[in-house]
This record gives sequence, C-alpha cells and structure tokens, in this order.
Amino acid sequence: MALNIYLSGEIHTDWREKIISGARGLDLYFTSPVTDHDASDDCGVAILGAEADKFWHDRKGAQINAIRTRKAIADADVIVVRFGEKYKQWNAAFDAGMAAALGKSLIILQPPEHDHALKEVDAAALAVTRTPEEVVSILRYVETGVLPG
Amino acid sequence: MALNIYLSGEIHTDWREKIISGARGLDLYFTSPVTDHDASDDCGVAILGAEADKFWHDRKGAQINAIRTRKAIADADVIVVRFGEKYKQWNAAFDAGMAAALGKSLIILQPPEHDHALKEVDAAALAVTRTPEEVVSILRYVETGVLPG
Amino acid sequence: MALNIYLSGEIHTDWREKIISGARGLDLYFTSPVTDHDASDDCGVAILGAEADKFWHDRKGAQINAIRTRKAIADADVIVVRFGEKYKQWNAAFDAGMAAALGKSLIILQPPEHDHALKEVDAAALAVTRTPEEVVSILRYVETGVLPG
Amino acid sequence: MALNIYLSGEIHTDWREKIISGARGLDLYFTSPVTDHDASDDCGVAILGAEADKFWHDRKGAQINAIRTRKAIADADVIVVRFGEKYKQWNAAFDAGMAAALGKSLIILQPPEHDHALKEVDAAALAVTRTPEEVVSILRYVETGVLPG
Amino acid sequence: MALNIYLSGEIHTDWREKIISGARGLDLYFTSPVTDHDASDDCGVAILGAEADKFWHDRKGAQINAIRTRKAIADADVIVVRFGEKYKQWNAAFDAGMAAALGKSLIILQPPEHDHALKEVDAAALAVTRTPEEVVSILRYVETGVLPG
Amino acid sequence: MALNIYLSGEIHTDWREKIISGARGLDLYFTSPVTDHDASDDCGVAILGAEADKFWHDRKGAQINAIRTRKAIADADVIVVRFGEKYKQWNAAFDAGMAAALGKSLIILQPPEHDHALKEVDAAALAVTRTPEEVVSILRYVETGVLPG
Amino acid sequence: MALNIYLSGEIHTDWREKIISGARGLDLYFTSPVTDHDASDDCGVAILGAEADKFWHDRKGAQINAIRTRKAIADADVIVVRFGEKYKQWNAAFDAGMAAALGKSLIILQPPEHDHALKEVDAAALAVTRTPEEVVSILRYVETGVLPG
Amino acid sequence: MALNIYLSGEIHTDWREKIISGARGLDLYFTSPVTDHDASDDCGVAILGAEADKFWHDRKGAQINAIRTRKAIADADVIVVRFGEKYKQWNAAFDAGMAAALGKSLIILQPPEHDHALKEVDAAALAVTRTPEEVVSILRYVETGVLPG
Repeated sequence: MALNIYLSGEIHTDWREKIISGARGLDLYFTSPVTDHDASDDCGVAILGAEADKFWHDRKGAQINAIRTRKAIADADVIVVRFGEKYKQWNAAFDAGMAAALGKSLIILQPPEHDHALKEVDAAALAVTRTPEEVVSILRYVETGVLPG
Repeated sequence: MALNIYLSGEIHTDWREKIISGARGLDLYFTSPVTDHDASDDCGVAILGAEADKFWHDRKGAQINAIRTRKAIADADVIVVRFGEKYKQWNAAFDAGMAAALGKSLIILQPPEHDHALKEVDAAALAVTRTPEEVVSILRYVETGVLPG
Repeated sequence: MALNIYLSGEIHTDWREKIISGARGLDLYFTSPVTDHDASDDCGVAILGAEADKFWHDRKGAQINAIRTRKAIADADVIVVRFGEKYKQWNAAFDAGMAAALGKSLIILQPPEHDHALKEVDAAALAVTRTPEEVVSILRYVETGVLPG
Repeated sequence: MALNIYLSGEIHTDWREKIISGARGLDLYFTSPVTDHDASDDCGVAILGAEADKFWHDRKGAQINAIRTRKAIADADVIVVRFGEKYKQWNAAFDAGMAAALGKSLIILQPPEHDHALKEVDAAALAVTRTPEEVVSILRYVETGVLPG
Repeated sequence: MALNIYLSGEIHTDWREKIISGARGLDLYFTSPVTDHDASDDCGVAILGAEADKFWHDRKGAQINAIRTRKAIADADVIVVRFGEKYKQWNAAFDAGMAAALGKSLIILQPPEHDHALKEVDAAALAVTRTPEEVVSILRYVETGVLPG
Repeated sequence: MALNIYLSGEIHTDWREKIISGARGLDLYFTSPVTDHDASDDCGVAILGAEADKFWHDRKGAQINAIRTRKAIADADVIVVRFGEKYKQWNAAFDAGMAAALGKSLIILQPPEHDHALKEVDAAALAVTRTPEEVVSILRYVETGVLPG
Repeated sequence: MALNIYLSGEIHTDWREKIISGARGLDLYFTSPVTDHDASDDCGVAILGAEADKFWHDRKGAQINAIRTRKAIADADVIVVRFGEKYKQWNAAFDAGMAAALGKSLIILQPPEHDHALKEVDAAALAVTRTPEEVVSILRYVETGVLPG
Repeated sequence: MALNIYLSGEIHTDWREKIISGARGLDLYFTSPVTDHDASDDCGVAILGAEADKFWHDRKGAQINAIRTRKAIADADVIVVRFGEKYKQWNAAFDAGMAAALGKSLIILQPPEHDHALKEVDAAALAVTRTPEEVVSILRYVETGVLPG
C-alpha cells in the first residue's frame, strides 16, 4: 500500500529531511511546498512583473504557490502539518483545514506549548506528534504493521 | 436571494454585532461559533466529565464545538473570517481552509499588519476587508446591487 | 441554527424518548428507524408476500427499512448511535460507518464495558456519552452555547 | 480489469490467506488492516506515549489504524467483510457501513447463525458468502467470466 | 419525515393516480414526467420550430423533457419506476440507472413476466412490487412505521 | 415543482424583464447578476478603496460579483444564458461552462449569427432559443406540461 | 491521451470484436460485461447455491455481475451502449442512465428503427452511431484528431 | 510531482508548441483539443453523415469534440486558456468555466486589451499571463521551485 504524503507548514528547520530520510525504504511518496522562502515570497512578481503595492505582490505569489499546494493536497493520502515555535503560520492551519474538509488523514507535528491554541486543528487530526521520529514511526506502522523497538 | 453567512474567528471584540446590526433589513442569516470563551474551552469536561490531562480536556471540548462549526460552515454561502490583533487564531485559518476546500465564498477581515502572513489565506478569498462596515457594504451589494453612498 | 438528528441503534429502552423530551424547546428535529421490532422484522413479507427462505424474508424487510434509514441519515446533521447492553447491534455500527463516510457529526451513547470493542467507532465520533442526559446537554450547548448547571 | 480488494473484519482465523492464495494468478490487489492484534491495540501508546486512561489509550491506537483502513477502503473496488463466530466485531460492521456509503461493492463472509443479526449489512451487499472459496469464485468470475467446475 | 417521490415510466394506465390517491394524508410529495404523450413527443418542435428530420424532432423534445425529469430525479428521495406490458420503455430503465448512480432509493413496479429481463434493474432496487397498492403500503410504512391490515 | 432559474449574460436589453413578466403565475424563482453596469464594474473599489492599476480595479470588482453569481448558479435548477449582438460576453460563456460542469440544465438564448461560434456551448445545452418568449414557453411546459397555442 | 471504454449492451453479435479489432494500435483500453450468456445468468447459483425461486436465482446472479459492471462503468471515460434488434435490453438502458448520471461520455450504437424509442437515451449521448465502424472512427478521431478517408 | 496540463483555446498561432518545447525536461504531460480547424468543424458529419441544417452539422461535431475535451479537462491539474486577438472564442471561456467549477488550477494567457472583458474569467484564475514564456516559467517553478534568471 503506497502512501502519498504532503509535508505542510514550517520551512525553517530540517524536519522534512528527517522524515524523508527516516522513512527510507518504505513505499512512501513525499511532496512539499516550495521551501525556498525568498522564491516562495517573490515568485509572482519574478515571473509576472513587479507590483507597486505589496498586497498584490503577495497575492500574485500566493496564487502561483497555490497551484502546487492544491495539487499536492489533492493527491495526498496523509497530510503532515508542522507548527514551529515562531511566526503566525496561518498557511499551515489553512492547509490543515483544507485537508480536513477533503477527508484526508491529518497528522500534526507541534510542540506542547501550542497544544491549547491548536486544539481545533488537533481535533480534526488522527495523530498529534512531537518529533519527526514519531511521524516516521506512524508511517512505518501504517505501511507495514510493524511497531518501533 | 437569501444568504447564509458564518462569522468565524476572533471573539474578543464586537465585530459580529457591528456586521449583524449594520446588515439589518437584508435577507441575511448569520451563524457564529460559541463566543463565550470559557464555555467554549470547557464544554467537553463540563458535560462529559473531567480529564486529568489538559490535552484531552481540550480535545473533548474542541470536538463538541466542531459539531456546531461544521454544520455552520456546511450551510453557509459566505464565510467571513476575522483575524484580530492578538493570539494565534489558528482555528480561524483552519475554518478558512475548510471553507476554501468546500468552495464557499470567503471574505477575510484583517488589519494591514497581517497582510503578509495571511497571503495564502487571502489568495483564496473573494474579498479582503479592513472594517465590519466594508463587510456590510459587500453583503448589501451582493444582496441588492446597491453600492454605499 | 436548526439541527436535524437521527437517533440510531438500540430499540429496547426509552433512550430516544429521554432525549426528545429533554430537548424540548430547542430547534431540533429528530428522526428514528421504525422502532416496532416485529414490524421492522416482517415489513418485507407483510407487504410483498411470504418467503420460504428466512434469508430472503430478512432481505426484503431490511431493504424496505433502508428506504427510511438512508433518507434519515442523508438528511441528518448529527447522528446519535446508541449501543445497548445486549444483542449484536451490527446495524448500529453499520449506520455509524455510513455516517462517518458521509461526514456527519457522530455522537455515540454506550456503556463503559463496550469501550474497547467500540474503539474504532468511537474514533470517528465527536462525542462518546454515557447517558441520554449527556446527549441532551451537548445538543443544547451546540444549539444555544449554554452549558448545564 | 484489475481489482483492488480490501479484506476487512475478523483477524483470528486464516480466511485472508485462503482468499489470497486461492486467487493466485488473477489480477487482484489485496489490502488488509494490521492483523497483529497486540500491535493494533497498542500502536497509539507505543509510538506516542502511554495514557493513564484506557479510553485514550484505545483512541490513540484506533486513530492511527484509521489512517490505514481509510486509505484501503477509499482505494478498494470491492470490500470483503468477514464476521467470525466470536466477539462484537463492530469495527467490521462499521467498515461495511463506510463501504456502502462510498458506493463500494460489498461481499460479506458470515456463518448462517449470524444471518438475522446481519440483515441490514447484508442488504447493502452484492454477495453473502459462507466460505473463502466462494469469495475466490466470485472474484475469479468477476475478473475472467469463468465459473467454477 | 417528508418524502419526495418521482413516479417514472409507463404513461398509459392510471397507476400514478392510484398511488397518489392511496397515499393521501401522508407527508409525501409526488412528481412525474409530462404524461401527455403528444405534448411530450412534440414539445421541442412546438416551441422551437419544426425539424425536417425526425431524429432532430425527437432530440429537441427529449432535451426539453430532460429539464423536468432531471430536476425531479435530483430532488427525489424515492424513485418508483413502472414497467408496463407494452413498448420498449427504455426511458424507464434509463431513469432507473440515473437513480441508482445518484444513490436514490429505487422501487420497481413490474408484472412477473418481466422479472428475468429486469433482473439487473431489480438488483439495484430496494423493493420490487406488483401493484400500486404495494407501493402505497411501502410508502406508508416508511413514513409512519405502520403495516397494512 | 418549483424551479430556480438564473438569468445570465447580456445586460443591455430587457430580455430578463420579458421572461420574468411572461412567466408570471408560474412557480418560478429568478435570480440575476447585478445588471447595473457601472455598479458592477466599480463595486470593488467603491467598497474596498481605489486601485492605481485598472487590472486590480477589475479584479476586486469581479471577485465581489462572484459572491453573487456563484451562489445564484449553485442554487439554480436552470441557467438561461443570453448572448447579445455586441461585446465579447466571455463572462456569459464562463457561466455556461460552470453550469455545465455542475450538471445544471442549460438554455441558451442567442441570435442565429452566433450559432457557429457558440457550437461548443450549445452542445452542452438542453435548448437553444431565439426569443425570450421561447424561453417562457419552455419554462411553462417544464412546469405545467402545457404547450403554447 | 489513453481512453478507457466500456462496451455495454447486446451480447449476441460480434460488434465488440469489430470495435476492438478496428481500434487496434490506438491507446484504448476496453472492458465488457461477461458476454457468456449462460454464465451471466447462472453465476449466482453456480457459486452461492441453488434457489427454489427464479426471482432470487436472478437476483443473486445480477448482483454478482454488478460487481464487474459498476467497476467498469466507474473507470470508463467513454461508454458505448449497443441496442440490438431483439430483446428488451433494459440492462443496456440502465447502464446508459448510470453513465449519464456519472457524467461519462456516452456513445449509442443503434439501428434506425429504435430512434424514437431511444430518444431520451440518445438525448444524453454525445454520438448516436449505426455501425461499429462509426464508433471506431469516433474513437480514432478523439484519440488522434485524424478523420477517416 | 508530475502535472497534467490542458492547453485550451486559440488554435491559430503556435503558443502550444512554445509552451511544450519550453517545458521540455519537466515532468509535465500536455493535452489539447483537436487543433486542425477543418477536422474539428466537420468531424461530426464526416463520421456520422451529412446534415442539411448547419446547426445540426455543428452540433454533431461539437459533441464529438466534447468527448476529447471533457476527458482532458477532467484529467488535468492545470488548465491554460489562451485568448487570442480575434474571434469570439466562447469555447475558451466555456472551458475556463468548466475548469473553475471543477476546482482546477487555471492560468489565463491573454493580451492586455482583453483585460477588462475577461475580468470575470481572470478572477477565477491563479495566474494571468502575457506570453507562453511566462506560462513555462510558472510551470517550471511549480514543478521544481526554481525561478527564472
């Protein structure tokens, strides 16, 4: 049973790499948003021309990024959403909402200090995890039925 | 053309009341989450019994609140999502994601300082507004074709 | 916010009456399967003629009952599924599965001794309750935002 | 015409192996839930940490198992649900309900003594069988048009 | 529980009237195709102008009739399809196929001599009946839980 | 059988009024886009503030108008799309495409000189008409089964 | 652009073979119902045991055949439905109705004498053909853009 | 992440070739309507026989072309719609409407002089571009995260 997994959210630490390398050998296919922060912010104006107003600068970029993220979410069986310790991360919660409405299996990766603020998001998830290793253990078990240790 | 409108997000200011009273006389039907903050936080344990672990205390409450919010979102033609100046407000972004995935018309109400952080959410919206009065003007125009002033 | 609620499952105690009378005054609309046990078992042959084979006797009845239950489930916002202390009650679990797949809000009403056996069903539910009074409290809160006591 | 088949239900006898080996050579792809009973019961706490309360112990595990079973049901063309002679088996009936609501072809494998109790489940099925061999004969016929004997 | 019922098929006998009058007093809402045979055949050219080719004469009419029948089928909870003793009646079988694909509850009303030829249609139905009175008895039971006699 | 009808397209002649007045007495409910051309063009900037760039001026307005038109199309049983003799009218063809994808019954009202250019749109329609009177005759027939004359 | 094509309907002539051999070399994938008439009629009792009543004999078989036909229809891009010169062929019209409701492209293959009786079915089709060669020409054109001759 | 892209609209310039050759090496799969103008216009009568009336000549062809375009749109992740400088191009706007209703990512390729007339179409798009090169840059970025230059 191959699984398609979208890794959504925080882009400043190496959690995606940890999951992908930890899951090596399993029949899993990973997708991600563009994680180059500058490219992601500026893709709209870089391709389609500058905007005087930052609001439309952002809009043009966010719309192009949506081509990728919507495809990735639509194709995914499992969405892992990582909330880091900084920033607003509303795009992560937005992805989680899309995933929930589409009936995707949702795994949240979050530090305990966010538990209360994320309770509505967590209530739609099938697992709330603390580390990339826990995510890998879940994916391995779902794929193979084998537990760690 | 009656419109069903769900007012999602921030619960610490009177923006809902401003929209509802401003829209008086129009054929609009408004729903909201439970906006009593304590009731919303504690409904799970108040009804179903205390939990030793705050995580499950929150989970029980969030799941009961989801009965209301999912019904309201499913029935809505328009979702207005208000981002205030404080707190994480991930539940607001989560509601916006659900609304987008379900093809609902989305109106965001946000202060300009959040524009960059909300760009992915805004890119899925049909209007980004600054005041409850702008929301009312949109709803009146959509309903009647009449512009303000 | 009116709610349409389907009361599925056990038909040998008065749990439906307790919920309906406890919820009096709220904007709730309740439906149920046919709870006359003999009528439910024999409706197929009573209307469409006797069958020599009990299997087809049961099939004819179950199919007619399905006209009612599928309509009720399709129209419901909330499905309450009661598991009693006796019998196999596979039809209750089947209704819960349909409700889950259709994205309905699911409330389970079960005695604690069934907790382990119902864990897969409960995992799809937004509330697991022990008494009809708890169900009423949830419905009142969802409808009005008011907690008991 | 390749067929994807999910084998749901009872995990204490070798009915899955009989079907899979009997169907060798056909263009069929089989999936199953995790059939290691202990792993299935304990996967939640084994990966995500112990729970003091058995209810949440079970919930964590059932949610992780749901990642696998929902994917398998969503991908399946045919769901075979086996009801054995012991246990409550509500998860099997729940899977059957999900399958029915999703419009999947449903084959039930059950001993005659359960016929009356399973009549609502059977009424949604395209075949009610007594032995793994009958299931294999159906799958071979559906795939190749060839009948046994 | 109000039910919306579409009465499809044969238009040369009074079976519709028998069902509607037999069901008086129940909370049922009936729709039908246009049962004026000449109007139904000629509506296209009568409104939109004559066609030299009978094929397009028929096409124009059939498309206009489809506006009515698709709406009726889409809104129906139950579709009753009557096969009479004469004519090809492919439109009746076509309506049954649409109803089945849309998950509607299907009741077939047919004489026994058609049983073998209708076996694929019947296999998608929740009841196969012989008389309008049996249809009424089913609808009354589904609505009220009361059996005849 | 009440019908909900969306009148899409050209806004410079009185075809909507002719249909609505011609259909008086029938159980039809009509919706339209905002037909005040200036209001429709400028609603975005009138409510949400001026834009230096005409492209975004248009975008803001078109998005607000979409709140109304998407609701109207989603609720409609029948979409009548009028192509007039002037202008590009791409929004009319766009509405027709949305209606087709959503399975709505489509009636096109067009002058013969557009027949070739509209052939793809017409191929998705259940009727191609030349005058508002023909549209009224179709709606009356669909509603009542009565043909003109 | 590979196309998946389901060949539904009449099983007494070699129209399927003509289409399949005529389409050799194109990127088309064909499926069919079981076309062995006896196997198709008796599959239910042959596998699951005899029935005293012919009605249930037929039902058991029709349900097993439905596993194959529903899968084939669900996977198809194009459904070709052949109406021959004899028999009731209600299963063919039923398949056409399912295909229409599911939004599949429908091609009908019928002799001219059935035109009037098939007008409702034809009105849902994208092509009405007279010979297997016409079907092949359509499929080749759809696939390659090349017309015959 | 492979992407399936449908190139809709204008068929008189080489914009499709520019996109396809510009995107060489990326994991993209392109489909198009039949771009041979005469074949596209006459396919219906060439295969199924001449029509005296040009309206039906066009209808027969448009319906056959719809087999290809609907499949291509249904399978696409991204729809690029090109509006050229001439002709009515209502089929292009119709395709855009279908794509929007189906939730596909929409990229419009248009000259600035059409901006006002296309504002409703553009408001449903994730990018409005001026040249095939801009389309290629978007597709490359979506696929690889790499910006031009």
